[in-house]
Amino acid sequence: RINGDRLWDSLMEMAKIGPGIAGGNNRQTLTDDDATARRLFKSWCEQAGMTVGVDKMGTMFATRPGTDPDALPVYVGSHLDTQPTGGKYDGVLGVLSGLEAIRTMNDLGIKTRHPIVVTNWTNEEGARFAPAMLASGVFAGAIDIDYAYGRKDPEGKTFGEELERIGWVGDEEVGARKMHAYFEYHIEQGPILEAEDKQIGVVTHCQGLWWLEFTLTGREAHTGSTPMNMRVNAGLAMARILEMVQTVAMDSQPGAVGGVGQMFFSPNSRNVLPGKVVFTVDIRSPDQAKLDGMRARIEAEAPKICEALGVGCSIEAVGHFDPVTFDPKLVTAVRNAAERLGYSHMNLISGAGHDACWAAKVAPATMVMCPCVGGLSHNEAEEISQEWATAGADVLFHAVVETAEI
Amino acid sequence: RINGDRLWDSLMEMAKIGPGIAGGNNRQTLTDDDATARRLFKSWCEQAGMTVGVDKMGTMFATRPGTDPDALPVYVGSHLDTQPTGGKYDGVLGVLSGLEAIRTMNDLGIKTRHPIVVTNWTNEEGARFAPAMLASGVFAGAIDIDYAYGRKDPEGKTFGEELERIGWVGDEEVGARKMHAYFEYHIEQGPILEAEDKQIGVVTHCQGLWWLEFTLTGREAHTGSTPMNMRVNAGLAMARILEMVQTVAMDSQPGAVGGVGQMFFSPNSRNVLPGKVVFTVDIRSPDQAKLDGMRARIEAEAPKICEALGVGCSIEAVGHFDPVTFDPKLVTAVRNAAERLGYSHMNLISGAGHDACWAAKVAPATMVMCPCVGGLSHNEAEEISQEWATAGADVLFHAVVETAEI
Ligand SMILES: NC(=O)NCCC(=O)O
Ligand SMILES: NC(=O)NCCC(=O)O
Repeated sequence: RINGDRLWDSLMEMAKIGPGIAGGNNRQTLTDDDATARRLFKSWCEQAGMTVGVDKMGTMFATRPGTDPDALPVYVGSHLDTQPTGGKYDGVLGVLSGLEAIRTMNDLGIKTRHPIVVTNWTNEEGARFAPAMLASGVFAGAIDIDYAYGRKDPEGKTFGEELERIGWVGDEEVGARKMHAYFEYHIEQGPILEAEDKQIGVVTHCQGLWWLEFTLTGREAHTGSTPMNMRVNAGLAMARILEMVQTVAMDSQPGAVGGVGQMFFSPNSRNVLPGKVVFTVDIRSPDQAKLDGMRARIEAEAPKICEALGVGCSIEAVGHFDPVTFDPKLVTAVRNAAERLGYSHMNLISGAGHDACWAAKVAPATMVMCPCVGGLSHNEAEEISQEWATAGADVLFHAVVETAEI
Repeated sequence: RINGDRLWDSLMEMAKIGPGIAGGNNRQTLTDDDATARRLFKSWCEQAGMTVGVDKMGTMFATRPGTDPDALPVYVGSHLDTQPTGGKYDGVLGVLSGLEAIRTMNDLGIKTRHPIVVTNWTNEEGARFAPAMLASGVFAGAIDIDYAYGRKDPEGKTFGEELERIGWVGDEEVGARKMHAYFEYHIEQGPILEAEDKQIGVVTHCQGLWWLEFTLTGREAHTGSTPMNMRVNAGLAMARILEMVQTVAMDSQPGAVGGVGQMFFSPNSRNVLPGKVVFTVDIRSPDQAKLDGMRARIEAEAPKICEALGVGCSIEAVGHFDPVTFDPKLVTAVRNAAERLGYSHMNLISGAGHDACWAAKVAPATMVMCPCVGGLSHNEAEEISQEWATAGADVLFHAVVETAEI
């Protein structure tokens, strides 16, 4: 069993870096706080006897050697970056539970045939730079590194510049590493495990996603002196598209979601009808046909809504991954570990995207999940209990050690 | 007749301060560019033999003495501040045409019984600090000065701090000045004069306004892992309120408008359902009962929309003025001047709010308007011809001189 107190202490220590305003964290990718978090993680890894490599996307790989020089490593990863108003566990739990697994192996003198590599992927959240899971996407060959370097945050700073600025451009070619297996432990970020009173989610699939960035072009004009029939009202078109996305998502039940988290009005003045409205629609489903059908319907209906108002409409896909089926053998290893340890468990489809979704393209991969209070995540009030954290980390430890072979 | 070339040159000179990105201006109130514009205007006034006083709201009063020491001044004013993506004429035309009237009087050796005061009101636009027409509102006793000082821009800086920072807190008590009459010349900012092919708008009324700032409280949650039925979706509530405002405005035709120019999502991340959505509804009508009826209907329906989604809804009125009827004698003076000068004219109701609306509370007041291309304003592409500018300035000059009595 892992040391739950030590894991919890490390979580609390990490949460001190980039505190939020309501008990959570604002430690967005490639900020100074991200750099501080990376340094702390690196020092912990080195204290645990690991050596840390960094690739050109800034992803950190902390290696514990195996006994067989020819054996590919087992990877355990997640991310240390957070949303602007993020929780203390989203991502961090997975990285630090990987570290805790190594610390426990050290305590118990466990040696494995395969090396074990604890990984901190850069920009999992996609809050500053779309898309999410950017570094693992490049690693898996799904995203071009030049495209990644050119992604801009809302202030216009690029990913490449900011990675350079915080000093974390590594020398490894991205994706050069080969994996024997990839494990990721994460909080569920949804309500199911808590509702079903299960300690462990055995993650069999991950739903796919499209992020559709809309740019609506209206005509900037005075809100007072512009008659209703002369308006080219991009704000109204936006409102109708949001309602339409809601309808599409509801029509696709069960097993689909759709919504909007990001919105920019320009010039954003109370008495100016917006000349430009930019927002991102997020749609997901574990069912490929359903997901693509939702996208097709949204892309067919939005231009009609805009046309009726004379508003220009352009749509760019700024994030995408297909639904993922995780590796059956690794899924079984997770389930068996939970069983062996006496933790209640159930199969789960991940509602959120994870680096495991990209890793699954290039290696056998799977995930372990623990519940979170009220299913709440991407919220500073995100909460889990130490018991939940410990149970999942135990399962991760067992599945990893078994896969890495003693 | 005034000197149309000189007026146009001054307009172009002023437009160099705080240039926009598309040929217009971004010279928002209490910015460094606003201070530069104030200094230039002051130097021009002093060159024209006027003395400049400043009140505690930063409003500038440039006085040309009259021959009768007991006669109250005739005021001519507007504003030099602009929208973030504003035009070169909105406000500026009125201030510089007042100055041009004085220059012309100097050229022609005209003396008037009443002094004439050319006025630059602070924060007419309301883009940085709501409400619009803030300084004239305080002048008219409709807005408390402490309330005005405490108004915040989107970055949290207060009006009082920023006025102090740019060095334009004057020593005059706000509203201490008494006016014999108040004239304001402005571009129409609407389509009517151009459509009717008239050179001069004789402004008889100004429509009233409510700015309703909505704060919707949802629950920040993951866009992917939060099932549709567990969402507390403030973004969706916002969309429904925008559609409802549109319906209310359309139901109130003719003679009413409603729309939204400003919108903030928080935390504004693509994969986070917004915890907070803040936006300002702008509704207007020249008919008091209609205006208040629109407000009542919006304030009744919005909470129902929110309640159905579990979203919290609070509404604060951050701007308001009642419909205004301008002084019949001054309106006649404007009409007579247009007639005398041979300019085509028509009666007009101002769609936009103006400092004249507050001045009308404490003095006989009216306005002169000229057309603008396509009715476009609050847009960098705002355009007028030199001929239009000149015609209105001529009318202003004649009406002012007549009212100030030779
Ligand atoms: N786990 C997580 O929140 N990842 C961010 C990417 C996503 O939006 O699903
Ligand atoms: N004239 C003008 O644009 N004033 C700003 C106040 C308003 O929104 O009407």
